[in-house]
Amino acid sequence: MKEKPLILITNDDSLNAPGIRALIDFIRPFGRTVVVAPDRPQSGTAHAVTIAHPLRLELVSKKTDYEEYSCNGTPADCVKLAFKVVMRRRPDFLFSGINHGTNASINIVYSGTMAAVLEGALAGVPSVGFSLCNYSMNANFANSKTFVRTIAEKVISNGLPTGICLNVNIPDIPAEQIQGIKVCRQSEGTWQEDFDEREDPNGRKYYWMKGVFVKIGNGQDTDQWALENNFVSVVPVQFDLTAITALDSLKNWF
Amino acid sequence: MKEKPLILITNDDSLNAPGIRALIDFIRPFGRTVVVAPDRPQSGTAHAVTIAHPLRLELVSKKTDYEEYSCNGTPADCVKLAFKVVMRRRPDFLFSGINHGTNASINIVYSGTMAAVLEGALAGVPSVGFSLCNYSMNANFANSKTFVRTIAEKVISNGLPTGICLNVNIPDIPAEQIQGIKVCRQSEGTWQEDFDEREDPNGRKYYWMKGVFVKIGNGQDTDQWALENNFVSVVPVQFDLTAITALDSLKNWF
Repeated sequence: MKEKPLILITNDDSLNAPGIRALIDFIRPFGRTVVVAPDRPQSGTAHAVTIAHPLRLELVSKKTDYEEYSCNGTPADCVKLAFKVVMRRRPDFLFSGINHGTNASINIVYSGTMAAVLEGALAGVPSVGFSLCNYSMNANFANSKTFVRTIAEKVISNGLPTGICLNVNIPDIPAEQIQGIKVCRQSEGTWQEDFDEREDPNGRKYYWMKGVFVKIGNGQDTDQWALENNFVSVVPVQFDLTAITALDSLKNWF
Repeated sequence: MKEKPLILITNDDSLNAPGIRALIDFIRPFGRTVVVAPDRPQSGTAHAVTIAHPLRLELVSKKTDYEEYSCNGTPADCVKLAFKVVMRRRPDFLFSGINHGTNASINIVYSGTMAAVLEGALAGVPSVGFSLCNYSMNANFANSKTFVRTIAEKVISNGLPTGICLNVNIPDIPAEQIQGIKVCRQSEGTWQEDFDEREDPNGRKYYWMKGVFVKIGNGQDTDQWALENNFVSVVPVQFDLTAITALDSLKNWF
């Protein structure tokens, strides 16, 4: 009988977030599971790594085929520590999330959840990030179960091409209203930031970042379109950022 | 007479790093210059944004056609604050760096310098990141001058295609040994991390991240090859991470 796969689970909302508890619940039956996740919320940390401070790892729980650790670092730190210190090998699969809030379109650039996934892909591990389109810590993840398990099963059966990982986003609607799973490209979009300017008790100004996401274009082949039309979106993601189309025109410059 | 362009300069090594002082020196003659840079080193912060803490901005210096601010946030925060609070408009150009250390190959994923550049590109601003292949705070930036100015002049004259920015890396050798400027693609590569495990005075373990960059492949069209062969590398970069080549095969999954 084939050995159970070794699976790493992480996220950016911290070990205490309902999203990762749901993901652990959905994924654990597939194999031996190790969880290494941040000890505090790390939303918006993107692909940050901790080089100026030491990292800590704490064993939280250990059962048959299951270990759970908290880490004081970023999601990318968690993945690196998991590979080198906790598992002392690369896992067979990496799943990150379920993120509280969308990582579709340009949100991937800021996402710690997806940075962990890219970190997995960089190490050659088939890796998937899951996000639910609801930012609340009270979001209901039960509707995600079927889709998370279907996609995870496909990845466990088929693997993924080297250097390619998946960005999965799930609409926040009842499971029976979801129209299916749609493979798509990353939508164009941007954040229109604004800053809330305030004054502290000493008369010094400070700023809170706020903003609204603005979709650009409406291609039916995009993740944003899929989500707005009640599909689960699956975007294959790579970490080669070269704008191939611009290579030739730039070569004439020098 | 055409108005002087409005230029934003930032970095991730902080306002006190010799690299940004050199960049300001090289770029300032091209236009009205605003500097908004982190008040402390932010290497490895990638595209992190600050949403859980308030941001501060301090005016450091103001002269004719020149303003300099320090900010307690990340490079991406600096760019967002510069656009919305300091300039109250998008600048005509954004230059980031000069980074102390390479951002070639996969290093772009972890780079705060390049996150600032991507942030510019996301807002439609022609943006360029410069890095010198020397991590030392005592690195000598004088040899970079000709290349930084040549590339900045080209971008100021020609602009850049929408959504595309440049990742420029400069070998740490005398200017006369540099073979030229080469437009290339991002090299494959990875970091092989290791962790230095230590014990604190209370007997608790902690870990320092360390690692070596490992190049994968040796394509003569890559930035890593260019740098190793004494060329300045210029990679056009996009923020659409879709792995287009994988779309069709994945569509058969669902």
